[in-house]
Amino acid sequence: MNYVLINKMISKPGKRQEVIDILTESGKAFDNVPACLLYLVSESVDDPNVIWIQDVWTNKADHEALMKSESMQNFIKKAMPLLAGMPEQYEIKPVAGKSEWIS
Amino acid sequence: MNYVLINKMISKPGKRQEVIDILTESGKAFDNVPACLLYLVSESVDDPNVIWIQDVWTNKADHEALMKSESMQNFIKKAMPLLAGMPEQYEIKPVAGKSEWIS
Repeated sequence: MNYVLINKMISKPGKRQEVIDILTESGKAFDNVPACLLYLVSESVDDPNVIWIQDVWTNKADHEALMKSESMQNFIKKAMPLLAGMPEQYEIKPVAGKSEWIS
Repeated sequence: MNYVLINKMISKPGKRQEVIDILTESGKAFDNVPACLLYLVSESVDDPNVIWIQDVWTNKADHEALMKSESMQNFIKKAMPLLAGMPEQYEIKPVAGKSEWIS
């Protein structure tokens, strides 16, 4: 079953683009990872400090292994001081709709 | 540019499956709509009353026209009494990642 996450981050005022740059750079590690089906970084249209990240992975273990890697931990250390609080992470289970990710 | 939404709904206790059934049934209207690239209904893994809906459309006008249709309004009327509050809707702009939806 796919492992699907919705993440919300709130940057400190004026720091959203810096956080997005880090998320963009760190996400390049997923480009050649077949277990990563989607990694989508988005800006909120209405709130200038909010970032949403949507993840679809074929399994949880591959995601966790990558997140624990030294390079990923360095990106996290770089991003944390730019955030207004802890990132929120929601694991969800796709159940219906128009999508190939329902499992 | 794609029109991308994240929606969060909280059902009244014990009513989540009924809401999901309505979302599943109403979402069938999108199956043959080319402007709808993704319509994904998911359950929260941690909260038994939370539903997340992710939408990717090629444009806002086609989404709005469909949502205003009589059949869709009937589905909304059926779902609203099963919810614990107003649905939250967040428009987002994809900016980076591993996805075909960055525009």
